Amino acid sequence: MSDSILTNDKKFVFRSWTEQNKANPMIIAGGNGAYFWDDKGNKYLDFSSQRINLNLGHQHPKMIEAMKTQLDSLTTCAQIFSTEPRTNAAKLIADRTPGDLNKVFFTNAGSDAVEHAVRIAKISTGRSKVLTMHKSYHGATAGSLSLTGDQRRWFSEPGIPGVVRFFGPHLYRSAFHSKNEQEECERAIEHLEEIIKYENPKHIAAILIESIVGSNGVLVPPSGYLQKIRDICDKHGIVMICDEVMSGFGRTGYWFAVDFWDVCPDIITFAKGVNSGYVPLGGVAISEKIAGHFDDEYFPGGGTYYGHPLACSTAVASINIFESDNLLSKVRLDGEEVVYPKLQDIKNNHQCVGEIRGLGLFWVLELVKNRETKEPVVAYGLKKSASCPISEFTKECMRKGVSVLTSGNYLFICPPLIIERHDLLKGLDIIDKVLFGIDFTK
Amino acid sequence: MSDSILTNDKKFVFRSWTEQNKANPMIIAGGNGAYFWDDKGNKYLDFSSQRINLNLGHQHPKMIEAMKTQLDSLTTCAQIFSTEPRTNAAKLIADRTPGDLNKVFFTNAGSDAVEHAVRIAKISTGRSKVLTMHKSYHGATAGSLSLTGDQRRWFSEPGIPGVVRFFGPHLYRSAFHSKNEQEECERAIEHLEEIIKYENPKHIAAILIESIVGSNGVLVPPSGYLQKIRDICDKHGIVMICDEVMSGFGRTGYWFAVDFWDVCPDIITFAKGVNSGYVPLGGVAISEKIAGHFDDEYFPGGGTYYGHPLACSTAVASINIFESDNLLSKVRLDGEEVVYPKLQDIKNNHQCVGEIRGLGLFWVLELVKNRETKEPVVAYGLKKSASCPISEFTKECMRKGVSVLTSGNYLFICPPLIIERHDLLKGLDIIDKVLFGIDFTK
Repeated sequence: MSDSILTNDKKFVFRSWTEQNKANPMIIAGGNGAYFWDDKGNKYLDFSSQRINLNLGHQHPKMIEAMKTQLDSLTTCAQIFSTEPRTNAAKLIADRTPGDLNKVFFTNAGSDAVEHAVRIAKISTGRSKVLTMHKSYHGATAGSLSLTGDQRRWFSEPGIPGVVRFFGPHLYRSAFHSKNEQEECERAIEHLEEIIKYENPKHIAAILIESIVGSNGVLVPPSGYLQKIRDICDKHGIVMICDEVMSGFGRTGYWFAVDFWDVCPDIITFAKGVNSGYVPLGGVAISEKIAGHFDDEYFPGGGTYYGHPLACSTAVASINIFESDNLLSKVRLDGEEVVYPKLQDIKNNHQCVGEIRGLGLFWVLELVKNRETKEPVVAYGLKKSASCPISEFTKECMRKGVSVLTSGNYLFICPPLIIERHDLLKGLDIIDKVLFGIDFTK
Repeated sequence: MSDSILTNDKKFVFRSWTEQNKANPMIIAGGNGAYFWDDKGNKYLDFSSQRINLNLGHQHPKMIEAMKTQLDSLTTCAQIFSTEPRTNAAKLIADRTPGDLNKVFFTNAGSDAVEHAVRIAKISTGRSKVLTMHKSYHGATAGSLSLTGDQRRWFSEPGIPGVVRFFGPHLYRSAFHSKNEQEECERAIEHLEEIIKYENPKHIAAILIESIVGSNGVLVPPSGYLQKIRDICDKHGIVMICDEVMSGFGRTGYWFAVDFWDVCPDIITFAKGVNSGYVPLGGVAISEKIAGHFDDEYFPGGGTYYGHPLACSTAVASINIFESDNLLSKVRLDGEEVVYPKLQDIKNNHQCVGEIRGLGLFWVLELVKNRETKEPVVAYGLKKSASCPISEFTKECMRKGVSVLTSGNYLFICPPLIIERHDLLKGLDIIDKVLFGIDFTK
């Protein structure tokens, strides 16, 4: 049975983000909480939440129950009609977004959430340019990929017009030769203001940022940075869009990462944690003012599955679980009391750990060949070979029962938010031990 | 309860394809087969399959059962892993696509299927231009919307570079002053060849067409047209992409509309009918040759939810239902024996019906103010007002218990494929009767 799955998989499945011949898939048969298992019964502790997605872990019984209940009444219908799950999901989300981001537009995923957010900003301002960061990821459709600031867009260029990139703060590899976080923050803002000046602020529809940069290295902005962007946007009438597809819905211990700094953008994009991906779902939370632009003007966007009743019912169930289980404070405490101290130990134990960064259960270890030169263990934009130390590392973790996500020279620590403390410690211990056996100086 | 849903809907839901103030939503509470009902218990015969999506109708018991079974083992996981539902869905689809379109890439919907299809074509050919039709719709993300040939893209331009449009065959409103289908076919091909010549065939990555143009009026191409495009693509090494998001999976009485003409494109995009939208799902079926380009070259595309186990399990269930219920031949017979003759009657009864077109259970009535001038009942690109005759018509149909989809001057006849014959006749009779009461000459 498993053999025929593998044979047919190779024969019929075209795979994402890879050379097809390189794919050597493992068959996942099931999961429970922070664990999943393959077809041979090997069990793995999930330290990446299936690509920083499954915030509530595998097969949460209350989620499954809510889905079965919804399946008994209405699975789907056209977006022109209203449904109880869509309305309830919109209200629950609006109640948790900061400020007056009270209008919720549902999409299928993060990519199309970003597409529609940017469209809303362009049309409501009548401007054409969007500023976005180097070291960022916003999705894989033409718009969201053009707005991305990493190598994944290279293969699909030229993209949409009007995208202008700037450098964000990242003290460890400062684009501004800063000596401390405060200087990095000031210089990053000064740099952004320079770019805005040369691009003409009156031509800029939006500044699009990940509140905390995700797959490009969990770059937590210095205190004050997001507020300064808020001020710049206010000054010039630019729409501030925070992409919280990865950082939203509890990943940082807050509903949204912007809450940590008490900053309110004009638009938030979300997906993943909104319902742990139990059904594809994304969306855009929009301020009353910007949404109001479309009160009497046609809004040109949508999709057949948008506002899908079954998908929205899982968002409702997920938010209720967050509340009943007091998950946000659990995540904050896990981050402060367990992850941060343990990662400090790991950094002390291993020269290959250049920096640790994160918040809540959203962490990264930046791996370097040499602490002085900070040379990354994998050169930028190059695909890692199967024999490179970081591949060795992930394989060894899997052998020891921990599934970790790495990308470039980043090792992510992003387990499901419901992970029990002993499992969190177990996974971090295994990572610590495995690091001892790998030579990253090669 | 219903009141609070409506209040909260207005307050918190940002709606697709409309002015927000114009939205006057109806709450859908449930459905069964070809019927659905609102929160007040009013029941409607679904003559548009919820935007030409729900091919198996509402709440198909075998679909619901399959979903509950899948929910008991594995709801979702990262796309890097293999799962039984994804493999099985890919195999079942590959077995039904024409020719050697044996590699299946799963997406969330039709828009991102088109995005990835075009990316595959551009990268595998190393060319930058894509030819696409006026009067076409391919999706609402930046790429798929730029590739669209109707007014929905106007609001989001300029889009991606390299899109070149041509006119397709449409004898009723011929761009080529043709007198019959054969002439229309020849002239449309001649026109396409001219455009290819001036654009440089060596710069054209793909010709993207809807096998049967969907929301722009169910434009069934004349016999020979698709084969001629196949020949042109072969001659110049252009990738032929057929968008079957609307026409695929039984809508025409064939697995894919191209099967009616026995033509095999290089890539087919699909969504909607693949699983009746029970869970958001789309995809791309790719020829062995084009997929092979990525055997050892990196494929730069994907999304967190792509190949979603629950979504793929519904595709498996849906295809099995098509087979066990012999749905394809049912749809062909419904089209030939019921819809076509009855629409002929309707055309004879009503001067406002300029033309009827379709195949299987995929039909349109083109409504005109005047049969001689062929002036459409709604001018192109303009939003219809609530008091225009076509709005009057749809409201009256709803009052009589039939939910119909209109767009511009098109009235679609696209019920769920499982509709029973007496319901099909009932709906067509009501449409006939309601048409008698509306004055479209205004």
